[in-house]
Amino acid sequence: MVTRAGLDALLNPRSFALIGASDKSTFSLLVHGNLDAAGHRERTFLVNPRSPEVHGRATYPSCVAIGMQVDLAFVMVPAARAADAIKDAAAAGARAVMVLSSGYAETGPAGRARQEELVELADSLGVAMLGPNVLGLVNVTAGIPAMALSDPPTEAGGVALISQSGASCGAMKDFASMAGVNLSHVITVGNEAMVTVAHLLDHLVDDDSVRAVAIFMEAIREPALFAAAARRAARQGKAIVVLKAGRSELAARAAASHTGALVGDDRVVDAVFADLGVIRVDTIEDMLVTAGIAATTGRIERPGIGVVSISGGACDIIADLAEGVGAEIPELTAATTATVAEKMPDFGHAHNPLDVTGAALIDTDLWEHAIEAVGNDESIGTVVVVNSLPWREDGRPFYGQKYVDAIGRGMKASAAPALYVTQVPQPIGTQTREVLRSGGVPHVVPGMRAAVEGIQRVVRWSRDVARAGREPEQVERLEVRKGRYSEVDARGLLEQAGVPVVPALHVHSAAEAEKAAASFDGPVAMKIVSADVAHKSDIGGVRLGVTREHAGAVHDEIVAACAAADPDAVLDGVLVSPMRAPATELLVGVTRSDEWGPVLAVAFGGVLVEVLDDAALAPLPVDEARVRQLLTSLRGAAVLDGVRGRPAADLDSVCRAVVAVGRLAERLGNDLESLEVNPLRVHGSEVEALDGLVLWRE
Amino acid sequence: MVTRAGLDALLNPRSFALIGASDKSTFSLLVHGNLDAAGHRERTFLVNPRSPEVHGRATYPSCVAIGMQVDLAFVMVPAARAADAIKDAAAAGARAVMVLSSGYAETGPAGRARQEELVELADSLGVAMLGPNVLGLVNVTAGIPAMALSDPPTEAGGVALISQSGASCGAMKDFASMAGVNLSHVITVGNEAMVTVAHLLDHLVDDDSVRAVAIFMEAIREPALFAAAARRAARQGKAIVVLKAGRSELAARAAASHTGALVGDDRVVDAVFADLGVIRVDTIEDMLVTAGIAATTGRIERPGIGVVSISGGACDIIADLAEGVGAEIPELTAATTATVAEKMPDFGHAHNPLDVTGAALIDTDLWEHAIEAVGNDESIGTVVVVNSLPWREDGRPFYGQKYVDAIGRGMKASAAPALYVTQVPQPIGTQTREVLRSGGVPHVVPGMRAAVEGIQRVVRWSRDVARAGREPEQVERLEVRKGRYSEVDARGLLEQAGVPVVPALHVHSAAEAEKAAASFDGPVAMKIVSADVAHKSDIGGVRLGVTREHAGAVHDEIVAACAAADPDAVLDGVLVSPMRAPATELLVGVTRSDEWGPVLAVAFGGVLVEVLDDAALAPLPVDEARVRQLLTSLRGAAVLDGVRGRPAADLDSVCRAVVAVGRLAERLGNDLESLEVNPLRVHGSEVEALDGLVLWRE
Repeated sequence: MVTRAGLDALLNPRSFALIGASDKSTFSLLVHGNLDAAGHRERTFLVNPRSPEVHGRATYPSCVAIGMQVDLAFVMVPAARAADAIKDAAAAGARAVMVLSSGYAETGPAGRARQEELVELADSLGVAMLGPNVLGLVNVTAGIPAMALSDPPTEAGGVALISQSGASCGAMKDFASMAGVNLSHVITVGNEAMVTVAHLLDHLVDDDSVRAVAIFMEAIREPALFAAAARRAARQGKAIVVLKAGRSELAARAAASHTGALVGDDRVVDAVFADLGVIRVDTIEDMLVTAGIAATTGRIERPGIGVVSISGGACDIIADLAEGVGAEIPELTAATTATVAEKMPDFGHAHNPLDVTGAALIDTDLWEHAIEAVGNDESIGTVVVVNSLPWREDGRPFYGQKYVDAIGRGMKASAAPALYVTQVPQPIGTQTREVLRSGGVPHVVPGMRAAVEGIQRVVRWSRDVARAGREPEQVERLEVRKGRYSEVDARGLLEQAGVPVVPALHVHSAAEAEKAAASFDGPVAMKIVSADVAHKSDIGGVRLGVTREHAGAVHDEIVAACAAADPDAVLDGVLVSPMRAPATELLVGVTRSDEWGPVLAVAFGGVLVEVLDDAALAPLPVDEARVRQLLTSLRGAAVLDGVRGRPAADLDSVCRAVVAVGRLAERLGNDLESLEVNPLRVHGSEVEALDGLVLWRE
Repeated sequence: MVTRAGLDALLNPRSFALIGASDKSTFSLLVHGNLDAAGHRERTFLVNPRSPEVHGRATYPSCVAIGMQVDLAFVMVPAARAADAIKDAAAAGARAVMVLSSGYAETGPAGRARQEELVELADSLGVAMLGPNVLGLVNVTAGIPAMALSDPPTEAGGVALISQSGASCGAMKDFASMAGVNLSHVITVGNEAMVTVAHLLDHLVDDDSVRAVAIFMEAIREPALFAAAARRAARQGKAIVVLKAGRSELAARAAASHTGALVGDDRVVDAVFADLGVIRVDTIEDMLVTAGIAATTGRIERPGIGVVSISGGACDIIADLAEGVGAEIPELTAATTATVAEKMPDFGHAHNPLDVTGAALIDTDLWEHAIEAVGNDESIGTVVVVNSLPWREDGRPFYGQKYVDAIGRGMKASAAPALYVTQVPQPIGTQTREVLRSGGVPHVVPGMRAAVEGIQRVVRWSRDVARAGREPEQVERLEVRKGRYSEVDARGLLEQAGVPVVPALHVHSAAEAEKAAASFDGPVAMKIVSADVAHKSDIGGVRLGVTREHAGAVHDEIVAACAAADPDAVLDGVLVSPMRAPATELLVGVTRSDEWGPVLAVAFGGVLVEVLDDAALAPLPVDEARVRQLLTSLRGAAVLDGVRGRPAADLDSVCRAVVAVGRLAERLGNDLESLEVNPLRVHGSEVEALDGLVLWRE
């Protein structure tokens, strides 16, 4: 059990013990050096029974010997002595320990066993353990660099960074510093034996200093807690940006080999993140830049981006980049255009993206005026101001401060949040930060690609976050028979759940078959009914386009063929239903993920599914709006608009049917392996399931 | 006419005249300051008849008054005096001038007329003119900063940079400097009134200091020269990397408004670039990083990338990034694996991507050993070494030099070119350059995404560059009648060109129609024949699935319907051909681009074309291998493998037919507006045109 008190001790300790402190240990040198430099020397105690002096300071033989409350202990002793160290720390009042040493689960089964012993011990002592195999954390807001990495960040901001990788965390915090993304926390989690990313996320979401969370992870260890924390973050308007490795087979294998954790089905992870409003990215820089943007803008009210720049080339590049990611650069209203045009030179054009032209070199107010006008346009949700900034930290005076000042004034007068964007990625060093601060510029984004892509991610998140924040409704359980289901059984469930199903008559003789066929217009489809037959066509159990006069004979042929092909199968007659004209076909299926519960998939049937290999997934429950998003996200979605003379699909009816399938799957509970409608036939407003499959876990 | 002598004077001037030099002119201050700082003071002359002293130096009233040969003159006087300035410069021996002043084509028709006058003048004087509205150029290799931008680059390298945008060029050269991409030239072209990007490219391709060219452009002003230079670059193994704005409607409009140049049909530009082996990118940083990689690696022999890193997280991220862009990270051979494993710690895994583990912190040779082994693996074409580098230019000692040294030794022993890659984008400052130089590391790439994407671009270029370097074969012209063509006329041309065409009989009476229908198995298709009817179906001119007994009546119905619908059309009977079973349908069309000549397009017909809106384009000529690439690049390409029980397409036959269509279009010459086969029916090895269309320019 990881308690709130334990996490508090981990994230906000007032006193520190370094168990295994040594002049030869890089960990010890770094942790001590960092705490010392941050002013914690008096409350940092070095524990080493064999050296009276370490780092030039007197040591203690144990934590208990310090004679003072220790909040957080760093365990840097070999595995054999780790348990004693934890006990000693707990005895001195520590509610949290970090085990920096390696030699645990990452080395194989023996190490895993050692690790589990430590978890049990920590648990029994009521201590929260971070690690093992961890580099520690920095609470930047509180000025606590409890970390074995050099140059811990000192300028606090709104982005909390959590990393499963210690080795990459150095690069992450360095990039954040270079890119002007100020952090509230930097936390590595090592082997996540006890305190996981989910625990930390859950804790940080309620921290007022945190306005966005950036996470690098390979596996998600506590899915339910992670999901609950993500929903709470969504309700608070705090974006979570995750770089989750394991999209590729190769990365999944690599991650498994060095963390021992399975990365999970990547398409399901994508679906779950979309459901939770978690923003997924592919690089460290996108993770941090996007979190930095979200921390600055919060929820963005409209998708439209207004661009103001002094370079025509930059305007062109940014327009192309925006189109590439589906970001909107809308035309300005007539009123805005008129306001902008007032101050523009004759050869300029008051459009979006707006090139203020070289005239702004002389008339600096043109910057302010343009940003204010664009930022108050009713179609604009964010303003991007592209301009240069100094990047050489060489102390030379910056001739462009007056432009930054004018930009800062414009940003203040803009209703939409505004970001200062450099044309290319560049470091935001001490001098540049001073330039921005003095100009009153709230946030800078390094490079146009990072800006456009990052803003677009935050725009999509803003659109989805209300849904993500809703707690899923609990459904009433439907108690039904489990075991093997025939198509007739499956049809029964679907009909009961309100899914439209093609009419059918269940017959047990040639005579009944003929009569059934005669009751429908035109030819019929005939299918064997058996809970024991999974692939009916393969054994001659399906005949299509049967005319009334042949129905009796075909009945007997089907039964005979199936009996011959699978003598053990219990056959239960034949299903007779009317043939339907060719139409758009959907696959609608629900499968169960061990981590995330039931997951709905929709895809096009027929040629499209084979050619496009495309399906859209979402964890249940889904509502009609969500199903509509899924359908329109499919690569072949244009087929729903009606092609080759077919009518456009009645999406409301389709969505209702899909929601009913999802709802049914939820109500059937955890023993359901899968529920599938294949195909769901769609022809204008005609929507019906032509076949259904229910599988229970054995 | 831009002569070689003129370009030489522009790029390698030995003496300079600043016409309109003034202490109040930023241009003058920057150009003079740059030339002075680079040691050209003695050969830099200031021309101003009204001020005896400028920039603290004596001036001359004219170029002629200098009494010495002037190679290059900077024209910084207002438009009204520009012509006299150019004459004066020419009289002093200048073969090249740069017109820095603005007020020309970018301001409207009057400015355009002024600009054209200058071009005529320069042409008549045998002077090459860069600009107007230009910032100049830096020949970094020769140490000539003839440019009105601050901080011109001084460390020469193999990448020539050409930019149509002056305002963005500052950001470009700064990024190159930060990213460790060393430049041979930085050239802005302004309005490109006389010297164009194509002229410069043509010149630079033969410069031994240039190993790759990076270009930012909005329009391509001399397509034929550009194409010829690109083919020569391909033969020399010099990559051209272009950031061409105007992919989006918005950017195309923006570019047109500030340059007056049309950006061209973007899909055609893509196709032409692919044909010429020109690498296209979307950002300034991708342009420069990719050119930097190509200048270092040259042509890469194999697609496989070997990754060596000390961070497991970095390995995972890079594997995902590689999959995202289709880059290969192949498994190592058994021999390499064994070699690597020899020195790896027990808990490590000798895979690609290779995590050398924390053991390499102690055993630095592990780096060297691993890079050497991976770089000599037979499946590896490039080695990527991910490791940190210092980025703060604060003079602190760098503890990791020994790792860089070991990496440098490994790179030297690697057969495949090797690149040092930082985990995140970071500036490569003076200190870091020294670290790399001292370690013998040839090139560094800032960030894993830039590296993976950049290498993959160079890999694809390496694959295509041999084809791109071939001069297109000239085809023999086919002399045929022009004007309006009926389907019968079009069929005739196609058949003559060796395109397989569905059999058909051309009939002129009901009796002939019946006889024709009887000569084919099964029902027939009947279509009106008329050179005047573009859309046969719309006026009742097409009937499908006609049985033999109805053929006579249908003939008369078709003729009557068309005559009634379009009384002016000259009708020429009916075409009768056998119905074909449903199969895969392709559209094969050739249209003419004013800039690039005939362009072939292939796409899938039927539902797929409507749903996917996807076509593959290539300028003619194409060979079968190229057509195969086009077809397999289509989004629905899986349909060619055979879906829903259809046989796989015989791609050889399909490609032969498409090549024949392309060849025919070429042979028909420049008056051809378009040639289309729609559909080309493909069913296994059955490949035939079911309809054809020939349109001539009016």
